[in-house]
Amino acid sequence: MSAAYDDTNIFAKILRGELPCYKIFEDEAALAFMDIMPRTNGHCLVIPKVPARNVLDLPPADLAKLITRVQKVAQAAKTAMQADGLTLHQYNEPAGGQVIFHLHFHVMPRFAGVELRPHTGQMEKPEVLEENRAKNVAALISS
Amino acid sequence: MSAAYDDTNIFAKILRGELPCYKIFEDEAALAFMDIMPRTNGHCLVIPKVPARNVLDLPPADLAKLITRVQKVAQAAKTAMQADGLTLHQYNEPAGGQVIFHLHFHVMPRFAGVELRPHTGQMEKPEVLEENRAKNVAALISS
Repeated sequence: MSAAYDDTNIFAKILRGELPCYKIFEDEAALAFMDIMPRTNGHCLVIPKVPARNVLDLPPADLAKLITRVQKVAQAAKTAMQADGLTLHQYNEPAGGQVIFHLHFHVMPRFAGVELRPHTGQMEKPEVLEENRAKNVAALISS
Repeated sequence: MSAAYDDTNIFAKILRGELPCYKIFEDEAALAFMDIMPRTNGHCLVIPKVPARNVLDLPPADLAKLITRVQKVAQAAKTAMQADGLTLHQYNEPAGGQVIFHLHFHVMPRFAGVELRPHTGQMEKPEVLEENRAKNVAALISS
């Protein structure tokens, strides 16, 4: 059993405009923004607008919409970052690695010979986040 | 740019019935089976029936169908394995961790305090794979 959705999580606050984000994409179904503690250069997150704790409780029709946005962002991020590959992660419940309890897909551009950085809790410099955000936005627009 | 799809990969062979698998689910869109080198107890894979190298080249409509099967298998695997959580991974291109070039989602049941095992190349015992396969099938049937 999953716990119920709690709308005090930080992604819910971002969706309500109560917290800022480095936004790269938004439509009626999803929001994509830069992970501020990136594990790779260009690491971004894609979340559904509907309240869902994780992949276990999102209605299938909403999940189907979400994954097409994840794909779009993934394709753009690979191009934008001139990456060699791409890794998707999605965590469910604390034992599954989840820390923020609003469903999110991690989209991580990957580079040959470069390992994923560990979760350090270290925030990336704002100018780097903004630069990568701008690259992702440009790649999305031209896709 | 992704390379073209090459249908000599082992998942294509499984789809054509040329290689066996520990099957847990199949319909017109997807096939799910046990990972024979599991990183967690109950680790399984979900693949589309259409030829696709990875998430970068699968048509969005097929990806939308696939993810609903991933969700179904994930929910069942969590129940079947009495897991505390669940982690999804999906790798694209060698730099992204991909080894077999037919799109696949890793569904990994997770247990509190237990890390993901590294990829060792060590095959799990057939009796363990069969036992976990049977648990997953039972959970899917009753879901």
